[in-house]
Amino acid sequence: MVNKILSDSYSLALCTDLYQLTMAQGYFKNDMHYRDSVFHLSFRENPFNGGYAISCGLESLIDFLENFYFQTSDIDYLSSLESSDGIPLFSKDFLKFLTNMKFKCDLWAVPEGRLVFAGEPVIRIQGPLFQCQLLETIVLNIINFQTLIATKASRICYAAKEDSVLEFGFRRAHGIDAALMASRASYIGGCTATSNVLAGKTYGIPVRGTHAHSWVMAFEDELESFESYAEALPDNCIFLVDTFDTLEGVRNAIKVGKKLRLMGDDLLGIRLDSGDLNQLSKQARKMLDEEGFESSRIFASNDLDEYSIKELKVQGAPIAVWGVGTRLVTGNDQPTLGGVYKLSAIKDENGNWNDRIKISEQSIKTSNPGILQIRRFYDNESRAIADMIYDIRSVLDTELELINPSDKNSRRYFSHETKHENLLVEIVRQGDVVYEFPNLQLIRQTVKREFASMNANIRSLEYAENFPVCLEQKLFNLCQDLVTGSLRKKSSNRDEL
Amino acid sequence: MVNKILSDSYSLALCTDLYQLTMAQGYFKNDMHYRDSVFHLSFRENPFNGGYAISCGLESLIDFLENFYFQTSDIDYLSSLESSDGIPLFSKDFLKFLTNMKFKCDLWAVPEGRLVFAGEPVIRIQGPLFQCQLLETIVLNIINFQTLIATKASRICYAAKEDSVLEFGFRRAHGIDAALMASRASYIGGCTATSNVLAGKTYGIPVRGTHAHSWVMAFEDELESFESYAEALPDNCIFLVDTFDTLEGVRNAIKVGKKLRLMGDDLLGIRLDSGDLNQLSKQARKMLDEEGFESSRIFASNDLDEYSIKELKVQGAPIAVWGVGTRLVTGNDQPTLGGVYKLSAIKDENGNWNDRIKISEQSIKTSNPGILQIRRFYDNESRAIADMIYDIRSVLDTELELINPSDKNSRRYFSHETKHENLLVEIVRQGDVVYEFPNLQLIRQTVKREFASMNANIRSLEYAENFPVCLEQKLFNLCQDLVTGSLRKKSSNRDEL
Repeated sequence: MVNKILSDSYSLALCTDLYQLTMAQGYFKNDMHYRDSVFHLSFRENPFNGGYAISCGLESLIDFLENFYFQTSDIDYLSSLESSDGIPLFSKDFLKFLTNMKFKCDLWAVPEGRLVFAGEPVIRIQGPLFQCQLLETIVLNIINFQTLIATKASRICYAAKEDSVLEFGFRRAHGIDAALMASRASYIGGCTATSNVLAGKTYGIPVRGTHAHSWVMAFEDELESFESYAEALPDNCIFLVDTFDTLEGVRNAIKVGKKLRLMGDDLLGIRLDSGDLNQLSKQARKMLDEEGFESSRIFASNDLDEYSIKELKVQGAPIAVWGVGTRLVTGNDQPTLGGVYKLSAIKDENGNWNDRIKISEQSIKTSNPGILQIRRFYDNESRAIADMIYDIRSVLDTELELINPSDKNSRRYFSHETKHENLLVEIVRQGDVVYEFPNLQLIRQTVKREFASMNANIRSLEYAENFPVCLEQKLFNLCQDLVTGSLRKKSSNRDEL
Repeated sequence: MVNKILSDSYSLALCTDLYQLTMAQGYFKNDMHYRDSVFHLSFRENPFNGGYAISCGLESLIDFLENFYFQTSDIDYLSSLESSDGIPLFSKDFLKFLTNMKFKCDLWAVPEGRLVFAGEPVIRIQGPLFQCQLLETIVLNIINFQTLIATKASRICYAAKEDSVLEFGFRRAHGIDAALMASRASYIGGCTATSNVLAGKTYGIPVRGTHAHSWVMAFEDELESFESYAEALPDNCIFLVDTFDTLEGVRNAIKVGKKLRLMGDDLLGIRLDSGDLNQLSKQARKMLDEEGFESSRIFASNDLDEYSIKELKVQGAPIAVWGVGTRLVTGNDQPTLGGVYKLSAIKDENGNWNDRIKISEQSIKTSNPGILQIRRFYDNESRAIADMIYDIRSVLDTELELINPSDKNSRRYFSHETKHENLLVEIVRQGDVVYEFPNLQLIRQTVKREFASMNANIRSLEYAENFPVCLEQKLFNLCQDLVTGSLRKKSSNRDEL
C-alpha cells in the first residue's frame, strides 16, 4: 500500500509506465533526450455525454512534481530488470544519468475550477524530451481522475438545484488516496461537505454525517437507539429510519424529536436509505409536518446520481439534502475521463521547431500540432462565446478567423478587440513553481463564475449543447497540411514497397 | 495528496466517515463502547453479472491496521469541529479516550486468491463496538476495490484463454494508490505483467511495455523512428504501428525486423492500438508470416475488456498478447463491488450475545445474524459442491441440512464426513497479526487451484451459474425468527401509535 512505500521515501519517479523509461533510454542513446519538446494533455469527449468538464487536479500534480526524482533504491530496482533474453534492460550510463536527473520543464495549465472542453490542450508541458515523456503517466493519472469527479459532482449538484449535496463515497472509492482526491474534487464541483474525516483535516472541507444502521442494531429496538442517540448527541439528531420499517422509523424519530424539544434541542432531520424515495419522502414529510416538525429536513441516500435526483425532483420528492457516494466518487457510468498526452512539437538538431501531429483511422484520435494556448472570447455581457486554440508562436491577425474542426463550414470572426482571455497560465518555469495556488473556496467561486458566464444549456444532463471549440485559422491550415503531407508520404511509401 | 499527508505521520485513524466517530462518541457516552461486537463484510451480488469474486486486499488492510491510532494533530482537528449550533462536536473526555485507543479486535478473513460469492461473510471483525465501527469505512474501501479488480482481471484473462494479458492501466486508475493496488490485484487475477514500474518495484510484479506514439512522432518519419529504436534497444523491439497508417507501420516494422536479424536480434512483435483489430491483425499476421516473421507476436490494445477480447477470439484474430488498461483498473462496467459491513451480534450488559439482523424493503439488503464462518464442501473428486454459512457457536448436527435462501425449497444434505474446509482464517488476534501472508506467486497459484476445483461454468462471462451459497439449518431458522419477530414488533408498535 502506498502509505508504506511513501513512508520510506518521497521519490516518485517510478510512478510511470515501463515504456516511458525504455523510450527515455532510447532518446538518451540517440542523443535526443535533451531536445526541447512540447506535449499537451487533452480529452477527446466531454465526460458523461455532457457539455463541459471542470479542470481539477493541478495542485496534486504539482505536489507530485516535487518528488519527481530517482533515489538509490529506484535505480537498484531498474538495474535488476532484464529483457526477454536475459540482458539488462537499462544500461549503466543511462541509470547514472537518471540518478542525477533534475526536473527542468515548464508547465502551463488551465487553473482548477475553470470550464474546459473536449479537444482543448488543458495542460502544456515543455522541456527535455525524456522528462516530458516520463511525466505522461502521472499527469494523466492525476488529472483524468480529479477532472472527472469534479465534473460529476457539478452534474449531481445541478440536478439537486439549490439543495445540499454531501459526498459520502469514501467506502466505495478506489483506495484512500482516491477517496481523498474525490472529496476535494467533489467539493470543487459543488458539494457542500464530505463524510471523509481525513479530507476534512487535510483540505479543510466541512465534514458531515448522520448515523448508520449499526447504531440502531446495537440496541434492543429502534426507539431506544434514537433515544440513546439523542441523549448522547442532542444537537446532531438526524435519524436513519429504515433499519426495520421506514414509516415506523419516522414515527420513532418524531417521538424522540418531541423529547428533544423538551430539552431545548430539535430533530434536525431523518435519513431515508432504501425503498421508493419519492413515496417515502412524501409520507415522511407529511408525518413530520403534522407533528410540527416542518423544519426537520429529509436526507436521502442509496446509490443516488444526477439522473435519479433529477427524477425525484421531477416527482416533487421533498428531499432537502442528498447524500451521494458510490456513483459520485467512482464516476459510475464513466469511470475515466480518457485524457491523452501527445507530443506536438520538438526541436531538431539545429534548434528549429518541428510540429507534430498524430493521425489515426479514428479521426477523434488525431492530435493538434504546435505550442498551444486557448483563448476564450466573450460578448459585451461577458458571456463566453467561443474558445480558440492557437499556436503561441503565430502572429495573430487583427481579424481572427476561427474554424470549428467538427464543423468546418461554420466559421467565426473576431477582432483583436473582442473581449478575451487566455486560459493556460504559467505554473512551473524550468522546474520551479511560479504560481500561487488559490485555496479551495476561491476555486469553488471560480466554478460558480464560470457557469454564470456560459450558456446555461451546457449544463443540461442529457442534451447539452457543445460549446464552440475552434482552431485559429493558421493552426487549422497547419493541421490540414500535416495530415495531407503525411497521407502523401504514406501513399508514396506504399508505391515504393 | 496522500503522499504529503502520510509523510508527516503514519496515523490513519481519520480514514473514516464522520458518522463512525460521532457514533463512537455515542457508544462511549452510553457506556457501550467496549461491548464485544461482531461485524461482517459481504457483497450483495457477484460483480459484473458473473459467477464469483476473487478475495483480494487483505494484506493492504492489515498494513492499514498497523496505523490505526490517533495522533495529536488528529485529536486537535476533531476538537475543532462544531455541530450546527456552534457547540463542539466531540467532548474532551471522548477525545482523551481516543488518544489512548489501542487496536484490540480479532479479524478473520477469507485469504487472498480464494473464490467467494455474493452473500458470504468474507471478513469477520470482532471486538469493542466502537473500534469495529470506526473500521467500517476503511475495510470496505480497501476490500471493495481490490476484490473488484482481481475479479475483473480474471474475467479478462479467461476471455484471452492461454494468451498473456498485460495490465496497462496506470494512467486511467484513480490516483497512484489505486494504480498500485490495481496492478497487484490484476496480477493476482491472472495478468502476467504490469506497465506500472512502482508496482514492479514494490510487489515484484514483472513489468512490460512497448513504446508510445510519441516515440514515432519524435522522429522525422516512422521508419527512422523504428530504426533508431532498434539501434538503442535491439532486444526489446515491439513496434507500435498505428501512428500514421497501420499497414504502412507493419511494413516499416518488417523492414527494421530484417535489419535486426542481420545484427542477431529479432522483431519481437508489433502493437495495434486503433482501428478494426480483427481485420488489421489478420492483415498484419499475413504480412509478417510472408516475410518470415512467424514468431513475431501481435500485441493489441485500445479500450479492451473481456467482451471485446472474447469477440476478437471468436473472429479468430491472431492476437497473442493483450494490453488492457482503462477497463481493467477502473472496473469499467461496474466500478464498485458494493460491499457492505453489518453488525450481526453484540453482547448485552450481562455478557450474553444478542444476534442482530438488518431487514429491508429490499430483501437483498437483509443481513445474516451471528458469528459466522463459511464451510466449503467437496465431492470425492475434490470439486466444490456448496458453501454453507453457519454460526460458530452452533453445535452442528452430524447430518447437516443446508438451505439456499434464494431458493428455499432446494435443500442439500451433507454428513459430517463430507470433505470440507472452513474458509475464514484467523488473521488478527486481539490486535496482533497471527497470520503469515503468502507471497504473490502463492496467491496466484491459489486462484488457479480454486478455478480447477469449481464447475467451469462459474467463469462464463454472461451466463454464469450461481454456486450454491446456503445457510446451515439453525442459522436459517434464526434468520426467519428474527425477521418474524421484528415484523411482529413492527405491527404491534403500529397498533399502539
